[in-house]
Amino acid sequence: MKQFFYPSSVAILGVSPRPGNMGRNILANLENIGFPGEIFLVSPKGGELGGRPIYSSVAELPQTPDLAVVLTPAATVPGLVEDCGQKGVKRMVIETGGFRELADDRRSLENQIVEASRKYGMRFIGPNCIGVICTESKLSVPFPLLDRPIRPGGLSILAQSGGIGLTYLHGCSENKVGVAKFCSMGNKLNVNERDLLAYLVDDPQTEAILLYLESIVDGRALYDLIRSTSKPVVVHKSNIGATSHAIASSHTAALANDDAVVDAALKQAGAIRAHTVHECMQIVKGLSLPKPKGRRLAIISRSGGHAVVSADAAFRHDMVLPPFPEEYLAPIQEATRASVIHLQNPLDLGDLFHFELYVDIVKNALAQEDFDAVVMVHGYRGPEVEVSRQFVAKVGELCKQAGKPVALVLLVDPEEMIEAAKLSSIPLFPFAEEGILALSCSQKAGGIPVTDRLGCAEGFDQDMAQRLLASAGPDGWLDLPEALHLLNAARIPVAPFVTALDAEDAVHAAETLGYPVVLKAVGGAELLHKTEAGGVVLGLEDAEAVRAAAQKMMDRLKPQRLVVMQQIGGGQELIMGIKRDPGFGPVVLLGLGGVTAEALGDVSLRLAPVDDNEAGQMMDELKGAALLKGFRGRPPVSRAALLEAVMRLAILADRMPAIAELDVNPLLAGPGGVMAVDARVRVAGDLPKPGH
Amino acid sequence: MKQFFYPSSVAILGVSPRPGNMGRNILANLENIGFPGEIFLVSPKGGELGGRPIYSSVAELPQTPDLAVVLTPAATVPGLVEDCGQKGVKRMVIETGGFRELADDRRSLENQIVEASRKYGMRFIGPNCIGVICTESKLSVPFPLLDRPIRPGGLSILAQSGGIGLTYLHGCSENKVGVAKFCSMGNKLNVNERDLLAYLVDDPQTEAILLYLESIVDGRALYDLIRSTSKPVVVHKSNIGATSHAIASSHTAALANDDAVVDAALKQAGAIRAHTVHECMQIVKGLSLPKPKGRRLAIISRSGGHAVVSADAAFRHDMVLPPFPEEYLAPIQEATRASVIHLQNPLDLGDLFHFELYVDIVKNALAQEDFDAVVMVHGYRGPEVEVSRQFVAKVGELCKQAGKPVALVLLVDPEEMIEAAKLSSIPLFPFAEEGILALSCSQKAGGIPVTDRLGCAEGFDQDMAQRLLASAGPDGWLDLPEALHLLNAARIPVAPFVTALDAEDAVHAAETLGYPVVLKAVGGAELLHKTEAGGVVLGLEDAEAVRAAAQKMMDRLKPQRLVVMQQIGGGQELIMGIKRDPGFGPVVLLGLGGVTAEALGDVSLRLAPVDDNEAGQMMDELKGAALLKGFRGRPPVSRAALLEAVMRLAILADRMPAIAELDVNPLLAGPGGVMAVDARVRVAGDLPKPGH
Repeated sequence: MKQFFYPSSVAILGVSPRPGNMGRNILANLENIGFPGEIFLVSPKGGELGGRPIYSSVAELPQTPDLAVVLTPAATVPGLVEDCGQKGVKRMVIETGGFRELADDRRSLENQIVEASRKYGMRFIGPNCIGVICTESKLSVPFPLLDRPIRPGGLSILAQSGGIGLTYLHGCSENKVGVAKFCSMGNKLNVNERDLLAYLVDDPQTEAILLYLESIVDGRALYDLIRSTSKPVVVHKSNIGATSHAIASSHTAALANDDAVVDAALKQAGAIRAHTVHECMQIVKGLSLPKPKGRRLAIISRSGGHAVVSADAAFRHDMVLPPFPEEYLAPIQEATRASVIHLQNPLDLGDLFHFELYVDIVKNALAQEDFDAVVMVHGYRGPEVEVSRQFVAKVGELCKQAGKPVALVLLVDPEEMIEAAKLSSIPLFPFAEEGILALSCSQKAGGIPVTDRLGCAEGFDQDMAQRLLASAGPDGWLDLPEALHLLNAARIPVAPFVTALDAEDAVHAAETLGYPVVLKAVGGAELLHKTEAGGVVLGLEDAEAVRAAAQKMMDRLKPQRLVVMQQIGGGQELIMGIKRDPGFGPVVLLGLGGVTAEALGDVSLRLAPVDDNEAGQMMDELKGAALLKGFRGRPPVSRAALLEAVMRLAILADRMPAIAELDVNPLLAGPGGVMAVDARVRVAGDLPKPGH
Repeated sequence: MKQFFYPSSVAILGVSPRPGNMGRNILANLENIGFPGEIFLVSPKGGELGGRPIYSSVAELPQTPDLAVVLTPAATVPGLVEDCGQKGVKRMVIETGGFRELADDRRSLENQIVEASRKYGMRFIGPNCIGVICTESKLSVPFPLLDRPIRPGGLSILAQSGGIGLTYLHGCSENKVGVAKFCSMGNKLNVNERDLLAYLVDDPQTEAILLYLESIVDGRALYDLIRSTSKPVVVHKSNIGATSHAIASSHTAALANDDAVVDAALKQAGAIRAHTVHECMQIVKGLSLPKPKGRRLAIISRSGGHAVVSADAAFRHDMVLPPFPEEYLAPIQEATRASVIHLQNPLDLGDLFHFELYVDIVKNALAQEDFDAVVMVHGYRGPEVEVSRQFVAKVGELCKQAGKPVALVLLVDPEEMIEAAKLSSIPLFPFAEEGILALSCSQKAGGIPVTDRLGCAEGFDQDMAQRLLASAGPDGWLDLPEALHLLNAARIPVAPFVTALDAEDAVHAAETLGYPVVLKAVGGAELLHKTEAGGVVLGLEDAEAVRAAAQKMMDRLKPQRLVVMQQIGGGQELIMGIKRDPGFGPVVLLGLGGVTAEALGDVSLRLAPVDDNEAGQMMDELKGAALLKGFRGRPPVSRAALLEAVMRLAILADRMPAIAELDVNPLLAGPGGVMAVDARVRVAGDLPKPGH
């Protein structure tokens, strides 16, 4: 990937002196940023532009460029890729649009490009993108003219949409957020977010990463990369509704993802998810400040109302406001004339107009060990402008000196905001809420260490699991005994059960298990909804009852087998399951069971496998988690046993890709442990062979 | 209230030539806005200022001013109020701070002000506020210098905090939102939001209202006012967390409200609740546009990415995107050169650079009957600036001509945003998400017609209810039979029951009711948690069982009475209740019952009384509402019976203010109706006297 960002020569294919030609903007961007390498221009009609020759073909170029940038009509692109391949070009940025995002019949054009690139071992970005920027190598090849300098810095931006990418790029420049690398990925035919993210994770210039995605091609790889890095990663994943999907597909050929899985995966990986452009801009502003080491804010405001609003924001974003120490407040108290302020956190400066003191107020707040970050809300007009601008300029320095963040909120008109931004070395926030959101996200951002998620793999009987999965019928479903045995193979506790072939067999099983027992008919897909079909009978108290029920079941349903199971009393009903996401792979699910909880949809998802912490978060983030922890005098369920069951299920999901879906419903949980009493398993794709 | 906004003369108390005197700003603001009436200055030291005499006392004024504005130290304020009273002044704006918001011992100062004002029949706004503005009468008395003209228009702003009030006032001017009236209310000792809102609801200049509140004094009156008007009302209610409460109390002496009740009341009244300053500004921008008649948006974007983000926003804000008609798209299709766009809604203009056509695209979209509003997302730079500015200027006109809103989103740098705003007659939005939020809120805003909420009062036996409430014990609790009879008095169905005094009595009762029955011990507060104490026995199937259980209960618990109740089988468990909010009065609650639903806290609130629609919304907004509507093959509960029970409970809450709290738990609901099987009622305050 590095070669995309650090080429020593660039060829622009599609530059011409014709009015309206956009290839010229690429040249202008390269010249404006001061690209130090060679630039070659190519266009069939030849000629010259600004003193540079235009070569009429790639073949004619005097040397092989490190990077070829293409902005020619879609139909010409496959030929140009072929030409570049023959010339020995290894990296291309194809900015041309008009491929699958326009119509399905353009896929053949795309296929030709992919084939040509394969033939020559080339990598390319796009098509349908606006290209690449690197502030270190001074490379800038987007086709829109970038009329403002890009501020160099530590944020790298990957965007599936050129328009949104530019919005973030410009927003960074306007907001004092320096940029390391930028890439608009378009249709992602060859290079995708995984390739680029892998590069940025290792790129020493990149300190934080912003990803704008409309679809996620290989969610699992993305997840692994985000999880692996300690660099903060902000993900603005759009395309969440059906209409969004239609437009996204016509714009960057994006497919829809299951948003609940995306959400869970990003949370699990330690990414920050932004939901709107405005929110995302605030978050990247926060990331450009020093990272808060904790949640403790000192809020200082010139307006009491904005102090209240700030405290609300701290409450919403899970930040805390410790009191200011006496020695911090003393000089402020002394300086206030009419003492119309009540000294607390948030600190309302009220009628304290000694602007010189403001610098000390911020400096001293940064020096306090009790605080991890400072929010300074300052509004000024008229005669206060000059001294306030000096203050604004100073705050950035204080922030850097202290290595602690200050969210500097300026309540000023837009014109003054522009002037203040020129003087400030740190981002400015329009309101306290935006600053506090930014600090909160920055504080939470960063990789989550991967602990040993495989501890619970111990004892997992993979051979047995494979044999059981191989027993699936043509419809993919396992019979109940095999489904339960599969849980046993993963060492997930299952209520004791025995398989029986007839009524006498069932009675014998019941005598062994002890009463009361449950009887379930086993017979393939048509009996999956056993309760409705009369295929489940509960509360059989003695041999006679078992015999009668079993006989009736055999007569009516003609099942292949019967399951006789110990009836487990009490316990909290939970559901636990596996599903397989096309992009993110195996996902485990935990939820409250019973019809009420299911109607409320109270479930938590994580990618498998999961460690102790992740399983614990799944349990804790259930809306009804209180039910598991001793609600209304009930005994709490065994946390250890529940987490172990979730971890073991996740191992099963991870090791056995043939499982398309699995439901344990219910899993009964009590103080002594958990126990599965029913399960459904569907196998898909190539069935595993027993013994490999 | 009108006299506060339309005085023909104003006295400013506390103006002096001393450097740093803030009273002079009040004078400057009045002069800048062009106040046409007389202005008098008062300060103990006398003198003159800018050619005006400074009177040394109120008594010396040559005439009685219509309005006196005070900005002097807190200790002097009671005396000045007395002076004004003697002079015959009827309206004061007390801007001075330093009262209860600073320390509790300042309450006596406040009391003196209140007493003096009462004595002379004066009304006053404040203290601790920044005053009043009226663009029609050209009155402007805030003490901060307002260095920009205020745009006249239809939005009136009431703010408890001066700082937030100014932020909204300036924000309106910057965003093309015209203002009718402004008032910062401060500590609300005399005039509060209810008084001002009542005035604004009738004020012909006021078309929409923005309320910023940190506390709500008389929530019920506020609710009634918002509900009564068809003018859109946006409420930014802050002060939601414990820390916020501490700072709000020291800043505008605000008490905390129960935020769940505030939320329910605002929703019920048809108000729009804003949660942040940024969000609130977007909403008022939306209100300054024509109101969308429905939810159908036409989204037009120059960037595909912004189109995707727009579609996400439409999805989140419950707006719909119908397809564009063929005849609308035909000219656009013709004009696109390379046809790199796929014509759908959102419409991605792709490489369509005919800016002249943009005007027609917007105009024709506004003309379509299929759309209620247009979102136009336009980004431009460099050579496109001139033609884009013409377009921006034109869109406002189109919007007014069509009487339909356009959310004009400009993706430009901040400098250009300022220039474009000068040319635009309508608000500009920074991103599509903000524009769509604004349109969505505007569409939903406006009063909700009050239907007949008292239909369910028919048959309510108020005398009986009063007698029952009078039977409460010294702790305020009713015994179970009286609680159940109270429900009967409100004609809420209760499971058939009989009160018994001993075991034989209980058996006789059970024989009359029919088996199975439930037995409950009745004996005052110590038996309220009957289940834990063994005071409830279920499933008694015959006389013998009843006799044994009753005898055991009598021996063990020595209850005063027993309740024998028919045991009702099946049905969905619900909870229903009354609570009384100090500000909003009687509140009814409906929730799913059973331990799972209770742990999940799935409840809905409304102020009592409620009509059919409101009761229906309570049912429908439960997260587990599906359970009531035929989930997994269960029969749906009787909607009519459930809504009637809620409405009847709300009548009870409304008519019987002595009820401090009431819980029906559970209320069993099935296809045939609903039935209360247990109830708790607590009476507080003066007990009602039977017979009136």
